[in-house]
Amino acid sequence: MKRRLALLSAAGAAVAASGSARAQAPASPGKERVVVQISTPDQRMWNQALNYVENLRDLYGADKVEMELVALGHGIGVLKMDSTQGSRVADALKAGVQVSACEVTMRRQKLTREDMLPNLGYVPAGLGQIIRRQREGWAYISG
Amino acid sequence: MKRRLALLSAAGAAVAASGSARAQAPASPGKERVVVQISTPDQRMWNQALNYVENLRDLYGADKVEMELVALGHGIGVLKMDSTQGSRVADALKAGVQVSACEVTMRRQKLTREDMLPNLGYVPAGLGQIIRRQREGWAYISG
Amino acid sequence: MKRRLALLSAAGAAVAASGSARAQAPASPGKERVVVQISTPDQRMWNQALNYVENLRDLYGADKVEMELVALGHGIGVLKMDSTQGSRVADALKAGVQVSACEVTMRRQKLTREDMLPNLGYVPAGLGQIIRRQREGWAYISG
Repeated sequence: MKRRLALLSAAGAAVAASGSARAQAPASPGKERVVVQISTPDQRMWNQALNYVENLRDLYGADKVEMELVALGHGIGVLKMDSTQGSRVADALKAGVQVSACEVTMRRQKLTREDMLPNLGYVPAGLGQIIRRQREGWAYISG
Repeated sequence: MKRRLALLSAAGAAVAASGSARAQAPASPGKERVVVQISTPDQRMWNQALNYVENLRDLYGADKVEMELVALGHGIGVLKMDSTQGSRVADALKAGVQVSACEVTMRRQKLTREDMLPNLGYVPAGLGQIIRRQREGWAYISG
Repeated sequence: MKRRLALLSAAGAAVAASGSARAQAPASPGKERVVVQISTPDQRMWNQALNYVENLRDLYGADKVEMELVALGHGIGVLKMDSTQGSRVADALKAGVQVSACEVTMRRQKLTREDMLPNLGYVPAGLGQIIRRQREGWAYISG
């Protein structure tokens, strides 16, 4: 009986530990995952979101963090061809950051991919992407 | 012994799976749950929060998503009788979205229910409601 | 066999329950934990973040909530010596709230601790601190 309980207790501890990891740690062990929302028309906040990318790479190390910038609504301008942040977006892409434009917003604002910076990712709905990332255990930062 | 271990392992897997679902998926299976915070004085962001409601219904389907808009602080104006978004708030309510006004904010700004749009929900503290929703596993969007 | 299954089932239930608590409730039982991000240059939002501190203490009771305000980027001004919110920050500190200035931001803006309000906490990276708190199960509020 004691043996059985010990087994149960060991199994319980293992499950509890993995449950904890699942709830509190990034999906991929040793790698931090962060999704950043850009949805305001304030260009100072666009600049700041790009700072976040640099800061997180400095903080965790380039190969220890996975980042996605999702631009939607009033934030979509950060990814337009005439964006004040064009060269910094290019840098982020080169550094392996996912940069995602919201296609719902693009339709609302009658934007095509020709209006946008090169090499972006596109997601059907920026909001849905942010929600999905939260479900997958990514940390969420409102930019 | 093998049988016991198999049992344990099956139980562990079941618990692990349900733990995973609990941490990463909506509380109600097959239904996405999202709480949206409206707390800025920027009316463009009020308009955007109402866009979110439409976008999420289009994305998931009306019966596959549960949404709550919580207006507090500088965002409470979106729910006042003279709100620029009055008809869109009415549409959201008709569509089954929970729209919640923060009573702490209302007291601070000396607002009564007569000052507010019809058919709203009221929560003792908007911030507390957002925190509660996060605890219940809802995705969180800062509007 | 039934007895073994009952045991397993009891163990499963206990683990499931603790898993649930872990995912949805604060790390410390009976205590709500909330991290608030201050990152905009809008001083109305600084004032609002300090309101949040008061509201949460009123809502949960002073000894039932643990709060951290993290100021970074365009929000760092709320913690500078000339902040419009200086006396309210002092009140928050007196009340046991953690108030954390982002050292990445301070370097970017060439600020030293002499430029800042007294008695603050300092974190190497404000963004990293917010991410860490989310991992630890704190609720997250974008201020």
